Amino acid sequence: MEHVSFLPLSRFAVCGGTHGNEMSGVYMVREMQRQKADRTGSVSVTSVLSNPPAVDACRRYMETDLNRCFTDALLSGPTTDDTPYELRRARELNAQLGPKGSREAVDLLCDIHNTTANMAVCLIFYSFDWIAIHIYKYIQSKMTSAPVRALCLNEPPSEAYSLESVGKHGIAIEVGPQPTGVVRGDIFNMVKEAVDLTIEWLQKFNSGSTFEGGEVEAYTPVGSVDYPRDPTTGEITAAIHPQLQDNDFKVLRPGDPVFQLFSGETVKHEGDDLYPLFVNECAYYEKKVAFKLTKKITVTLPSVGVKKD
Amino acid sequence: MEHVSFLPLSRFAVCGGTHGNEMSGVYMVREMQRQKADRTGSVSVTSVLSNPPAVDACRRYMETDLNRCFTDALLSGPTTDDTPYELRRARELNAQLGPKGSREAVDLLCDIHNTTANMAVCLIFYSFDWIAIHIYKYIQSKMTSAPVRALCLNEPPSEAYSLESVGKHGIAIEVGPQPTGVVRGDIFNMVKEAVDLTIEWLQKFNSGSTFEGGEVEAYTPVGSVDYPRDPTTGEITAAIHPQLQDNDFKVLRPGDPVFQLFSGETVKHEGDDLYPLFVNECAYYEKKVAFKLTKKITVTLPSVGVKKD
Repeated sequence: MEHVSFLPLSRFAVCGGTHGNEMSGVYMVREMQRQKADRTGSVSVTSVLSNPPAVDACRRYMETDLNRCFTDALLSGPTTDDTPYELRRARELNAQLGPKGSREAVDLLCDIHNTTANMAVCLIFYSFDWIAIHIYKYIQSKMTSAPVRALCLNEPPSEAYSLESVGKHGIAIEVGPQPTGVVRGDIFNMVKEAVDLTIEWLQKFNSGSTFEGGEVEAYTPVGSVDYPRDPTTGEITAAIHPQLQDNDFKVLRPGDPVFQLFSGETVKHEGDDLYPLFVNECAYYEKKVAFKLTKKITVTLPSVGVKKD
Repeated sequence: MEHVSFLPLSRFAVCGGTHGNEMSGVYMVREMQRQKADRTGSVSVTSVLSNPPAVDACRRYMETDLNRCFTDALLSGPTTDDTPYELRRARELNAQLGPKGSREAVDLLCDIHNTTANMAVCLIFYSFDWIAIHIYKYIQSKMTSAPVRALCLNEPPSEAYSLESVGKHGIAIEVGPQPTGVVRGDIFNMVKEAVDLTIEWLQKFNSGSTFEGGEVEAYTPVGSVDYPRDPTTGEITAAIHPQLQDNDFKVLRPGDPVFQLFSGETVKHEGDDLYPLFVNECAYYEKKVAFKLTKKITVTLPSVGVKKD
């Protein structure tokens, strides 16, 4: 079986509050800063509150979505008086934790997000990054309090728009269900366990452990489904059907109920067997869709270990 | 047993979007307007979207909380260039549905709210209003999809600050759990059933039915509990304990866990057996508390019927 070795992964960054109303990361980062948790064995830990003004205002963002600002093109453009706050902040974060694509970048960047959808713990990768997927496999094998799943987007690094793409390796942790503006103890505990297990993995990796390869299951997007809308006003005319609500990652088959019109009728799924994610997520600031559709994939992992000098 | 008679209750108003990010009322009102549901038998129905700019922005309010603007003092003050949008809008709504305390006011005003707390269906009254409490008793006896409870605040009408105080009789319907900005099908169905049952009760009342009195159970506030906070920054340092989260209306006894500090320790309840409500509600724009504490009361209702000319 294939084996891939990497240099030690000694610099780890944990970010929260990239979306200012997703509270698990905000309180996780504040607690790490309060405890001055800046080193665990071989791993130095930097904790960063990504968007402090949005956290203070309890809003997703102030002027533009910070987590769409990290493409190479946006990071390298000129800063003028008209540059939105979040793009300025993205360039600061890139200077602090990157620069993206450089040798100076942190080895692993983990950005914490929440969703109102019933996603439990979902790790999101923007590429088939063996380190990130091995950490997913490890967390999944150790965590008992909630299901752990992975969503693979597979985008070129230069076009990756989210904060974790600034690290040499990057993981977004998406945890829910949690309303915006609220911190739930159960969800906080899941986030804390995932971060602690990530640090544990990094320590084992740095100390010379080999992590066996094998097959892991993940989801990859194939499309999205919009709400039924009034053709004149564009307003939504249906809720997610109660039989689909909270059923993220459960297979949706042709004929299964998808929407309940406010007038009472049911709309059913047409097409292939697929897996809905981000069902009925609160995402007012973006083009809101009802849910994303994904298919299951199997990823064949090489074994990984630390590169000896 | 005592009997109280009232004039016919023929003018009913349903309001939603008083808080612009509580979506059940927004979609309930829009659907009623789409269906032109303006009369059911003896009852004329007016449906009103209370705060359209806040609904468009998906925010609780734009400048000040609309649902704190309906005291006699605020409604009667001068309108100047500095008057916040919501106070202007409160005066418009008072002209349309009131004026508060007058013969012209609608007979019953029902205002629909959502909470992120696990409150199911909770009717809120600002006084011991026999009509409102009889409607609560009726909804509770008919509804099977969710528990139905009542919270009695008992404030003088002139100081009642919320929209439903504009009607001759008023009820706030608080339904949850639902994240702000999200509409859930199950919660929408609860709201629709409660509104439909209210109209059914009004029709029966107007057609001469007598509603028997008796004892009903309700909750009344005795205080509130704040989150543990950092004495320097004022930031919260704990989540609601997972054993209390989602347990609104369940008795809290001395020694029961209340908070889970982000550092891991548990904080326990001290004091009397009480009932927590609005547990871990998202209420960023107001002074946020962890939950309200209530005690159970028994209300002895007279029978009610329509007053013959």
